[in-house]
Amino acid sequence: MNIGIVGLGLIGGSLGLDLRSLGHQVLGVSRQEQTCQRAIDRGVVDDASLNLTLLAAADVVFICTPIAAIAPTVQQLIPHLSPDTVVTDVGSVKAAVVDEVASVWHNFVGGHPMAGTTDNGIEAAVLGLFADNPYVLTPIDTTPVTAVKRVEEIVRSLTSRVYFCRPEDHDRAVASISHLPVMVSASLIDSCMNEPDSTVLELAQNLASSGFRDTSRVGGGNPELGMMMAQYNRESLLRSLTSYRHSLDQFIELIEQEDWQTLEKKLKENHIQRPQFL
Amino acid sequence: MNIGIVGLGLIGGSLGLDLRSLGHQVLGVSRQEQTCQRAIDRGVVDDASLNLTLLAAADVVFICTPIAAIAPTVQQLIPHLSPDTVVTDVGSVKAAVVDEVASVWHNFVGGHPMAGTTDNGIEAAVLGLFADNPYVLTPIDTTPVTAVKRVEEIVRSLTSRVYFCRPEDHDRAVASISHLPVMVSASLIDSCMNEPDSTVLELAQNLASSGFRDTSRVGGGNPELGMMMAQYNRESLLRSLTSYRHSLDQFIELIEQEDWQTLEKKLKENHIQRPQFL
Repeated sequence: MNIGIVGLGLIGGSLGLDLRSLGHQVLGVSRQEQTCQRAIDRGVVDDASLNLTLLAAADVVFICTPIAAIAPTVQQLIPHLSPDTVVTDVGSVKAAVVDEVASVWHNFVGGHPMAGTTDNGIEAAVLGLFADNPYVLTPIDTTPVTAVKRVEEIVRSLTSRVYFCRPEDHDRAVASISHLPVMVSASLIDSCMNEPDSTVLELAQNLASSGFRDTSRVGGGNPELGMMMAQYNRESLLRSLTSYRHSLDQFIELIEQEDWQTLEKKLKENHIQRPQFL
Repeated sequence: MNIGIVGLGLIGGSLGLDLRSLGHQVLGVSRQEQTCQRAIDRGVVDDASLNLTLLAAADVVFICTPIAAIAPTVQQLIPHLSPDTVVTDVGSVKAAVVDEVASVWHNFVGGHPMAGTTDNGIEAAVLGLFADNPYVLTPIDTTPVTAVKRVEEIVRSLTSRVYFCRPEDHDRAVASISHLPVMVSASLIDSCMNEPDSTVLELAQNLASSGFRDTSRVGGGNPELGMMMAQYNRESLLRSLTSYRHSLDQFIELIEQEDWQTLEKKLKENHIQRPQFL
């Protein structure tokens, strides 16, 4: 197949490496000449350009830009596409993207590969990034079955675990297990830093170990990721935060009231139920 | 030195291994005959007994029982001690323990080695458990300097990082960086499990990855540890939880009000300040 990739960062670049290794012809578009050259040098693409016209012959185009650029990129791409070209994206929120893009390009299938590393950019691209990781596809009622099948076939060839769901269900699920933990963890760091007693603060900084390290990891990560979640998945994130605050309030109340029996019951349930998420 | 250890689990057993390797004579007391025998077989102690009379000749006694048993154990031990024997403990909360024990045994120095593994019991004991880890000592105004020096000397020989502070400051510091993360993390699991939409819950369970795994780790751990923190460090934990709820409410408000500038500022501060705890 002729496959186009717009945005040659970690995700776009890794897709290119995998798809070329599977025998596809891969064409890449980046905003930076240097990235185009590196993509060719690293074998990420067969050809690369600053210009979207390169993708005129593509059967499928993956939009791998930051979320804010997905819809504008599709708008710019449309004049160059043949009517049966299938477009898909890799954005980590789906309802807002699918709403906007499906209304301008019929053959659009929302997608979200849940894979990554701590590094970004073309240099971070690796072969096999998506293997055994979830890859969510979010077709809607109007999405042509042929378009879904074409994207599904490619994604399955990456040996990803493919899930289908509505864009809204995707956003609620990732809000709870991905975006909520970031805000929960960010609030922990914020709270610990606000310790008013300098002796206690200094001691806390010296004594913090694996419990603090793990629980604070995602809240102390890349601020851009946190902003993306809050801005593009705001409604689902607020839904999760409201549920979380209710759970927190219950724990606080149990400790305040010294209701040790109920607290122990809840901690035991957590201990048993957590593995269902792992 | 002649060193007694009451309670031959992970901490007591590991102390025994280290102290014997440093040339001390180590005497152990356990409630279980089988543990006494294993402690001798594993080289954790020179001699072991079910009976506290074994410790009559000890220069220092480490109380390594669960927190609830520390004060009762000291009470039972007192008739067998010479007046200048120094007693110390390894409990993970200090104010309640020090209050109770210092009033019955003058030569008492509260201690808390912040080291551990996921395993418990005599079989989990390892040489070098305390090396490079924090070990907090919490003498009070009435603690004899000679007693503090004797415990400090032993603890430094384990190559621990020794900190001195008031029992109350210890409890506040560990509440914020150790006990608070457990309740924050437990609330996350509780909230995610309470998802009312079964499609979203199932999807969330399938999509959860490293962010959820790390943030939920301590909240899904041993329920007994969570209970210990809540029961014995209740006041400091509630203080930390109140501060945390305030931070959480601020994050929620910023997202509700779409105050992206302030949210970004806070996330950037977190990113910069987290390493001060690591």
